[in-house]
Amino acid sequence: MANTPTNEDILFLGIDGGGTRCRAILMDQNNRQLGVGNGGPANPFYDATRALKSIGAAVDEALQASNLSGEDKSRLVVGMGLAGVNIPSMFESVNHSDHPFKARYLTSDLHIASIGAHEDADGAVIVAGTGSCGFAHADGRSLELGGHGFPCGDKASGAWLGLSAVQAVLLAEDELGPPTALSELVSKQLKGEGLLIVEVLNGAKSSDYAELAPLVFEAAEFGDDVAVKIVSQGANYLNKMAQQLFAFGAERLSIIGGVSARYTKWMAADVSARIQAPLNPPEYGAVLYAKSQFYKNLELSQ
Amino acid sequence: MANTPTNEDILFLGIDGGGTRCRAILMDQNNRQLGVGNGGPANPFYDATRALKSIGAAVDEALQASNLSGEDKSRLVVGMGLAGVNIPSMFESVNHSDHPFKARYLTSDLHIASIGAHEDADGAVIVAGTGSCGFAHADGRSLELGGHGFPCGDKASGAWLGLSAVQAVLLAEDELGPPTALSELVSKQLKGEGLLIVEVLNGAKSSDYAELAPLVFEAAEFGDDVAVKIVSQGANYLNKMAQQLFAFGAERLSIIGGVSARYTKWMAADVSARIQAPLNPPEYGAVLYAKSQFYKNLELSQ
Repeated sequence: MANTPTNEDILFLGIDGGGTRCRAILMDQNNRQLGVGNGGPANPFYDATRALKSIGAAVDEALQASNLSGEDKSRLVVGMGLAGVNIPSMFESVNHSDHPFKARYLTSDLHIASIGAHEDADGAVIVAGTGSCGFAHADGRSLELGGHGFPCGDKASGAWLGLSAVQAVLLAEDELGPPTALSELVSKQLKGEGLLIVEVLNGAKSSDYAELAPLVFEAAEFGDDVAVKIVSQGANYLNKMAQQLFAFGAERLSIIGGVSARYTKWMAADVSARIQAPLNPPEYGAVLYAKSQFYKNLELSQ
Repeated sequence: MANTPTNEDILFLGIDGGGTRCRAILMDQNNRQLGVGNGGPANPFYDATRALKSIGAAVDEALQASNLSGEDKSRLVVGMGLAGVNIPSMFESVNHSDHPFKARYLTSDLHIASIGAHEDADGAVIVAGTGSCGFAHADGRSLELGGHGFPCGDKASGAWLGLSAVQAVLLAEDELGPPTALSELVSKQLKGEGLLIVEVLNGAKSSDYAELAPLVFEAAEFGDDVAVKIVSQGANYLNKMAQQLFAFGAERLSIIGGVSARYTKWMAADVSARIQAPLNPPEYGAVLYAKSQFYKNLELSQ
C-alpha cells in the first residue's frame, strides 16, 4: 500500500483507445504507476456508445487496481488519446461528453503514441494495428496521414490485410483469381469452407477482419504469391508514409500496433533502418499529455 | 379493365429483388401484363427484414396497378429471384418465411435474369449493378460465380467502383497516391471536401457506394489515370467471368444491371462482341420460372 496516494493528491490517468481495445494507466505526480485497466473496442467512429463504455471499464479497473474508488475520479487529470477523433465531428462529440474528472484532455491516439514513444513532443509514429495511420510532430507543427477508417482508408492495417485475404480466397474459389494457401488458412480459422466464410463474415467489423491478418504474414513467409503481393502492397504504403513523416522533419520514428512487428522485414531497407523502438507505451504518452496540458492551463490561469 | 381477370384465374407474379430495388410484375396465364410494382432494397443478406418489406411493397403496388386487392394474393403463383439467396442459410431463411400466396418459388436473381434474358433455361448473364455476379445454365447444369457480397466480393460492381473511388481520393488527399479528377467529382457529389467525405460515408451501405460509380466512368472517359485503372480492373474481372461462362457451355450472354452498359466498351473485344441484349427483364424471367415450377409440380402431383 506504499503507493496509495493521500486524498489531496492530484493523480494522472492516461487512456489509449483503439479499434480493438483500450488501456488506462494511473500515475501519481512523480510518474509512479499505481494501476492499469483494460477495456474493449474504443474507436468512437465505429461505435461511440461502445467506445465510452470500454473507456469507463478500463478506468474503473485502473482505479480498483490502485485501491481507489469511483469517488476518486474527481481527483483525476485525464489524458485521452482515441482513434477516430482525427475526424472533426467525432472530436467535438467525444470532447463534449460528460465526465466526472478534475480535467480531461482529448487528442488522437497517434498523438499520445508519439509522445510516449519519444518522451518528447517531437517525433513520428506509424500505427499498424486494426487500423493504420501516421503522425509526425516537429517544430511545433503536426502532420496526420491516413487513419480514415475501414473500409475506405486504413490501407496496410490488420483489417485491410484480413479483408484482402478474404477477397483473394473468394476469387480463388471461383477460379477468377490465382489459387492461394490463404484458402485453407482462412477456412480453418473461420471454421467454414469456401462460400461459408461469407456467412461467417456477414456483418463483420474491422476488428473481425483484423483477426485474419496473422494468416497473411504466415502465408507470405511461406512464399505464397497472393499473400506476398498483399503484404508487399501494405509495406509499400507504410514506406511512403514513413518517407513523408521523415520529410516533415521527424527525426525519430516508431512503428506500433498489432501487425507492426511483422511488417518490418517487408519494408524498404532505408526505412526499416531508421525505425526505433518506442520508449514507452501510448497510455504513458497520454499521462505525459495530461500533465503538460494541465500545468499549461494552470500557468495560463495564474 | 379488359385485362382484369376473373376470380377463378390463377395469376403469375414475378419478383426481382436486388441490393438497390425490387420489381414485381403481375401477368395472367396468357403472358399478358396486368400491372407492375416497385420496392426498395431487397437483398436479404444485407437486411432480411427490409428485403421482405420491400418485396411486400412491390407486390401491393403491382396488385393495385392490376385493380386487384390483398385478398387476391391467394390466387398468385409467385416466382421470386433474390440477390443473396445463393448463400445457403439465406435461401433457407427466406424460403421458410410465411407467405399468403397460392405457391411461391424462390431462386436467385441471377437465375431469373438468365431465364428472362434468353427466354430459355439455357444461357448466361452477368449482373453488374450494386453487386456483381455471373450465372450460366447449360445442359441441365448451373454455374454461379461471384455474388459474395460487399465488401468481401462483388468486384467490378457499382459498390466496388464507388469504394475504390473513395479509397483513391483519400490516398490522393494524403499524397500517398496519385492525384485524380475523382477528388473533385466525389467531393461534389458527397458535399464534403477532403476528409469530410469519411464522415458522410460513416455507416454507408453498398448502395451508397454504388451511387458514386457513374463518377468513375465519367473520370475514366476523360482519361483520368486513376479512374482508368479502376474501371480496367473491373472490366478485366468481368472478362474472366464471361470467359468461364462461355467455357461452361452458355451460347448466349447478356450483361445487365446499373453499371453494365458503361462497362461494355472497356471489356475485351472478343467478349463484348458476344454480348447480346436481354430479351426480357429479370422480373419477366421470374414469371416464366413461376410458371415452369408450378406446372412441373402439377404434373408431379397427378
